[in-house]
Amino acid sequence: MINRLAVIGVGLIGGSLSLALKKAGQVGEVVGYARTEIVRQQALDLGVIDRAAESIADAVKEADMIFLAVPMGAMASVLSELAPHVTDDMIITDGGSAKAQVIASANAALGKRFNQFVAGHPIAGTERSGPSAAFATLYNDHRVVLTPVAETKSEALEKVRVMWQATGAEVVDMDVEHHDKVLAATSHLPHLLAFNIVGMLADSDDCDEVLRFAAGGFRDFSRIASSDPVMWRDVCLSNSTAILDLLNDYRQGLDKIEQAIKNKDGDYLVDVFKRAKQARDTRFSEPGLIDNSEI
Amino acid sequence: MINRLAVIGVGLIGGSLSLALKKAGQVGEVVGYARTEIVRQQALDLGVIDRAAESIADAVKEADMIFLAVPMGAMASVLSELAPHVTDDMIITDGGSAKAQVIASANAALGKRFNQFVAGHPIAGTERSGPSAAFATLYNDHRVVLTPVAETKSEALEKVRVMWQATGAEVVDMDVEHHDKVLAATSHLPHLLAFNIVGMLADSDDCDEVLRFAAGGFRDFSRIASSDPVMWRDVCLSNSTAILDLLNDYRQGLDKIEQAIKNKDGDYLVDVFKRAKQARDTRFSEPGLIDNSEI
Repeated sequence: MINRLAVIGVGLIGGSLSLALKKAGQVGEVVGYARTEIVRQQALDLGVIDRAAESIADAVKEADMIFLAVPMGAMASVLSELAPHVTDDMIITDGGSAKAQVIASANAALGKRFNQFVAGHPIAGTERSGPSAAFATLYNDHRVVLTPVAETKSEALEKVRVMWQATGAEVVDMDVEHHDKVLAATSHLPHLLAFNIVGMLADSDDCDEVLRFAAGGFRDFSRIASSDPVMWRDVCLSNSTAILDLLNDYRQGLDKIEQAIKNKDGDYLVDVFKRAKQARDTRFSEPGLIDNSEI
Repeated sequence: MINRLAVIGVGLIGGSLSLALKKAGQVGEVVGYARTEIVRQQALDLGVIDRAAESIADAVKEADMIFLAVPMGAMASVLSELAPHVTDDMIITDGGSAKAQVIASANAALGKRFNQFVAGHPIAGTERSGPSAAFATLYNDHRVVLTPVAETKSEALEKVRVMWQATGAEVVDMDVEHHDKVLAATSHLPHLLAFNIVGMLADSDDCDEVLRFAAGGFRDFSRIASSDPVMWRDVCLSNSTAILDLLNDYRQGLDKIEQAIKNKDGDYLVDVFKRAKQARDTRFSEPGLIDNSEI
C-alpha cells in the first residue's frame, strides 16, 4: 500500500499507473506534476490524479513513492530537480525504455540516496499520449522489467515490485545491460529500420506513386514509423551503446545478403530466410507471447 | 472473352485467375498444368480448372491465352518448354513479382513470337498457397501492373488488360524498370530487412528470451519474415539489380543515422523520423491506399 504517490509526467504511462493503483485500492493520494498548467488541469479533471502540484518539489513532498514518467531526454533534469527534496523514506522509480543512462543520471543526481532508486520499464503502451490516453488496465498481463543494481536497497526493490504487481503486470528482474540489449533488438532497432525505409521513400520524387503500390505487408512493416519522433530521438540517444552494437551486427547480416544476391547464392538466401521464418513462426504462434502492445 | 485459357501453375495466383474469369463468364475452358499429379488432381477436384494437362505442350494446345503462375525461378524453363508450341493466335502473360528478368527470358525463349508476350504483376496475395488457397475475388479492387515493351503487340496488351479487368482489378501500365524499382522499395527490400533482423535474433543464444520481450510493434514489423523462403530467394535473384540499388541507398541512410547517434545529433534524428512519420501518416490514412494485401 502506497500512502502518497507522486507521478511526474501524467500522460499515458504515468496516468495509467495512477488509475491502476486507484482501481486496485493500493494507493492513498496521487499527486501529479506536468510542465504545463493545461495538462495538469486535464489530469485533474479526468480523475487521473487527486491533486496537481505546480512544481516537482511540491509534488514529491511527503510522497512515499515517486514515479518518473517523463520522456527519456527529460529524466536527468527531473532527477536533479527532485534530488534536494528526497527524504529517507521515499522510493523513486521510473518507466523509461532504456535503463543504463537513467541509472547513471540517478546516481549522479541522488548521490547517497541512489540506493532508494529502482529503475523500471513497463513494456506496454499505445500510439496515443497525454492524460486522456491513460487507462487502468494498460499494464494488465503485460511485462514490467526492473533492473536493480548492487546499491539498490532490497526493500525499495520489493516495494516497486509489489506496486507493479498490483496493476496486474508480470514483474521480471533483469540485468541493466541485458535489458538495454533486448529492447534494442526487439524495439529500438526495428523502429530505426522502419523510420529509415519510410524516410528514404519520402525523399524520393515519386513517393506518392510508390506508396500507391505498397501492399499490406508494407503497411504492417512500416507502422512503427508513425511513432513519435521526439520520443524516439530520446530513445536512440539514451540507448546508443546497445543500438550501435546491434546496428553493426545488422549491417553485417545485410552485407552477407547483398553478397549472396551478387553471387547468385540462392542457398545462402534460403538458409537465412528459413531460419528467420522458423524463429518467427515458432515464437509468435505460442499464446501469451504476443500480448504486449508497446509500439 | 477467352475461349481456352491455359494456366501453368494452378496455385493461389493461377487458380484465382481461373475462378475469377469463370465467375465473370469470361472464359470457355480452363486447362491447368502443375508439375505433380496430386496438385493437378486437387485443382480439378476443387473445380479450379476444367481439365488437367500432363505436360505443358498439352496444356497450351489450342489455347488463346496462356497464364504463367509459377515461381520466378521456374519462369525461364517453363517459357523454353512451351515456346515450340506457341502459335500465331496465342497470347502469353505471367504473374511474377519482378519483370525485367521474365521479359529477358521470354525474349530468349520466344524469339519472333516475343511480341505475343505481355508481362504482368497482380499485386495481390495471401500467406496461403496451392489450389485450395485460390478464390474468385482475390483480384477484386487490387492493382494489376502490366509492363509492355516496344515489341509488345497492342492487341495482345489489350486482351490481357480486358482479362484482368474482368476479375475486378484496376489495371495500370508501367515501365519495366520503374515497376521493378517500385516493388523493390515497397515489398522486396522490406522483406529482406525483416528476414535479416529475425534471422539475426534467431542466431543469438538467448533468442527465446529476447522474443519473449518483443512487443506488438515487433510482431507487425516482422510478420513478413514468415513468408515463403524459396519464393523470396527467387524474387531476390530475379530483381537483383533494383534490390541492390535500393539496398545501397538504404545503407547510406543507416550510415547517416548511425553517425547522428554517435554525434548525439538529435536534430538530425528528429528530422528523419518526422519526415517518415508524416509520409506514412499521410499516405496510409487515405482510404483506398491500403487495400492491397500481398505479403
